[in-house]
Amino acid sequence: MAITKRVDLSDAQVKALSSLVSGRISQNESVLDSHGRDESAFPPVRPSAVVTVHSTDEVSKVLAYCNGEGIPVVAFGVGSSLEGHVLPLFGGISLDLSEMDSIIKISPDDLTVTVQAGVKRMALNKKLSNDGLFFSVDPGADATIGGMTSTGAAGTTTVRYGSMRENVLKLTAVLADGTVIQAGRETRKLSAGYDLTRLIVGSEGTLAIVTEITLRVFGIPEKMAAAVSRFPSLADGVQAAIAIVRSGVAIARCEFLDAQSIKNVNAHDGLTLQEAPTLLFEFHGSPRGVEEDAKVVQEITSDFGGTDFEWTTEEGQRRKLWQARHNAYWAGIAAFPGKRAISTDAAVPLSKLADAVAIAEKILKESPFPHSILGHVADGNFHTFIVTDPTKPEELDAIRELTHKTTSAIIAMGGTCTGEHGIGAGKIDSLLEEAGQSSVAVMKSIKAALDPNGILNPGKIFH
Amino acid sequence: MAITKRVDLSDAQVKALSSLVSGRISQNESVLDSHGRDESAFPPVRPSAVVTVHSTDEVSKVLAYCNGEGIPVVAFGVGSSLEGHVLPLFGGISLDLSEMDSIIKISPDDLTVTVQAGVKRMALNKKLSNDGLFFSVDPGADATIGGMTSTGAAGTTTVRYGSMRENVLKLTAVLADGTVIQAGRETRKLSAGYDLTRLIVGSEGTLAIVTEITLRVFGIPEKMAAAVSRFPSLADGVQAAIAIVRSGVAIARCEFLDAQSIKNVNAHDGLTLQEAPTLLFEFHGSPRGVEEDAKVVQEITSDFGGTDFEWTTEEGQRRKLWQARHNAYWAGIAAFPGKRAISTDAAVPLSKLADAVAIAEKILKESPFPHSILGHVADGNFHTFIVTDPTKPEELDAIRELTHKTTSAIIAMGGTCTGEHGIGAGKIDSLLEEAGQSSVAVMKSIKAALDPNGILNPGKIFH
Repeated sequence: MAITKRVDLSDAQVKALSSLVSGRISQNESVLDSHGRDESAFPPVRPSAVVTVHSTDEVSKVLAYCNGEGIPVVAFGVGSSLEGHVLPLFGGISLDLSEMDSIIKISPDDLTVTVQAGVKRMALNKKLSNDGLFFSVDPGADATIGGMTSTGAAGTTTVRYGSMRENVLKLTAVLADGTVIQAGRETRKLSAGYDLTRLIVGSEGTLAIVTEITLRVFGIPEKMAAAVSRFPSLADGVQAAIAIVRSGVAIARCEFLDAQSIKNVNAHDGLTLQEAPTLLFEFHGSPRGVEEDAKVVQEITSDFGGTDFEWTTEEGQRRKLWQARHNAYWAGIAAFPGKRAISTDAAVPLSKLADAVAIAEKILKESPFPHSILGHVADGNFHTFIVTDPTKPEELDAIRELTHKTTSAIIAMGGTCTGEHGIGAGKIDSLLEEAGQSSVAVMKSIKAALDPNGILNPGKIFH
Repeated sequence: MAITKRVDLSDAQVKALSSLVSGRISQNESVLDSHGRDESAFPPVRPSAVVTVHSTDEVSKVLAYCNGEGIPVVAFGVGSSLEGHVLPLFGGISLDLSEMDSIIKISPDDLTVTVQAGVKRMALNKKLSNDGLFFSVDPGADATIGGMTSTGAAGTTTVRYGSMRENVLKLTAVLADGTVIQAGRETRKLSAGYDLTRLIVGSEGTLAIVTEITLRVFGIPEKMAAAVSRFPSLADGVQAAIAIVRSGVAIARCEFLDAQSIKNVNAHDGLTLQEAPTLLFEFHGSPRGVEEDAKVVQEITSDFGGTDFEWTTEEGQRRKLWQARHNAYWAGIAAFPGKRAISTDAAVPLSKLADAVAIAEKILKESPFPHSILGHVADGNFHTFIVTDPTKPEELDAIRELTHKTTSAIIAMGGTCTGEHGIGAGKIDSLLEEAGQSSVAVMKSIKAALDPNGILNPGKIFH
């Protein structure tokens, strides 16, 4: 890993890169700024230049050049990462793939779609709906498919449909030296050699730049139902969620929000939702199937003190029930104008979930920072959402201390520091604590084999 | 990759290894023979010695020693591979893990189980049933979990529950130099660094020796139903299967058997099943749910000329309906005493399945070899089952030519040479044809990084 200090491009390098991409290179300050930050609370870092690419071939040429010159390359989509993935910590170029936004092929009979990396999730779903299909992975933000692939995104529907790891069938990627590879096949099963697809998915732009992706998609279910239940305490809600998973009911979504999250949404959207720990559900299936599922869930929730159970299959009503969840992130930020949020991302084995949430809550309650807790509880994955003032960088250190304390406790109980957001720039030490020196050494040896000059997203995953 | 010719152990090496495993090393001819073959039609190859290990620590010591001495190591479970995985092509030791057969921990609340590599699938399921749980991956053979992990096994239930790639959460593995690593966590979601778990799963013993595995398990469904439907032609059956997948019905199993497969089973088991292309289904869910699923499937099958639809939830009846599928492999061999079978393993995108099966059928029909076709059609994965006389090795070459012709056609239509059996020793050229030189070069560079002396299962996946 050769990159140890910031690299700024010489005029000759700018000129050479410009010639590879028909002049689509910029050092304009506002362009550099917009490529120097994401949704994380990390301080912004400008790239030396932004290079916008239009094809796999251009990516290949740019990488081959940068590899020879020792110029760091960080891929950029829309900048919705929560872990500083797109920050060019060592300068070099931000490789903007957002204009590679073609939907290349929809195959309804195969239940697959092939897209360029810059296609955004919501645009894709709009297009797919014409064929009665949908792409299931929903991380909240309207991220690009390339970004979601590189970070191994997951979200609210993972419990039923899986994360990017299960839904990327095939990809085209460019290695550090410009070599273009195909990983995977457009088949549902594949056993041909090492699973390069899943190695690249979630590698956070450190092994290769993903340019095209074939995704698995699903038929839009005949019927969708939503349900909501309120609980006397956070622990009751979590225990109910565990029991529901254990029962085998085919929930499509199962989300938990604490009272504070509901309070924020009420304030943000002028609603009067009951400010209590809340579980939200979605069911996908036949009309009879979703009704049966909802009934089983109602029975289980009431065993755990759940009250005010509501359920509906009517679309308007359904959206209204889920509004609290969809708006929780933005409502949480809007409640504190000018502030930013840090989101933790612990995941634990299901049996440890109640303990893990209790530990996180206790540590946060003893802190001065406004916070809320929500999560994908059926996956054992929850986020604490901690509000910080970006004008007071000392707060960041204090929060890091808090989250590190929580994370160590989570790791000690067999959990992970990140269920879906990734390591990025802020969890490098936690990865070491969690996976161990030997495992991280294996990861580093793979990195060294594929990117010997260390130009791809330096400073992420490892020091 | 340093190993280029057969390695036979010196007396000093035998003595040194013996001291590492309390004398559990054998060069007895029958032991060497039983570790020199599997269920494939490859000619047997004896290891130089068989070393039986009882712990991860012993595996670590044996590997560290073999790595220093340049002795090839091939892991052995029960020898049920169909692709020559366990054959010690370059001699050295067969590392027998079958006595590492402890079920370490069942966690009903987490829906996980942790086992040693030598635990067999059926024994595991027997134990899990006490807690109302089951392990879903069913490749047919009573394989070890270590073997299934290393080959990335799949089978009849993959369409609903996934293959080993989706069901291995965490593993302990020993690298070539004896380093013990942990990959993955006991969580349902994980985004912490490179996905070493899925890199090792399916790496066919070429990257590491897997010693412990944490698996995802499921609650035994409240109700299971089976159904069967017969079709006028193979193409009709395949089209019906595709339409059923497209409909989103939650099938737990969906298998296709051609008329010849049914004929073999009738002969083998004294049955009088209708000798026609047949689709078999299994549904898991609530009593109402499985009934509804079966109804939808009946409607779709009849749209494609399906007749004689039968369905049942009664266990004895259910087993009887599925008997044809469960016995197809053995019935196929039993029909030709003294012969062996070669099983191909193509998988294609669903929309290409009917074409792919037709091509395979045409090529086989023009050959002199007895054959049948069956498969996991809902996954686009099918096997042709070709009977060969092991006393006539020239048949193997002729069959290889046939299967290579089919495989090339499959690859050209976007399919894979192996959906679930792996590359092993026989599909090395097909992997190159399918994945391309650059992808295979990446795989080789990972192999070189993790096993620089090339001691782990040489001659598999790559030349």
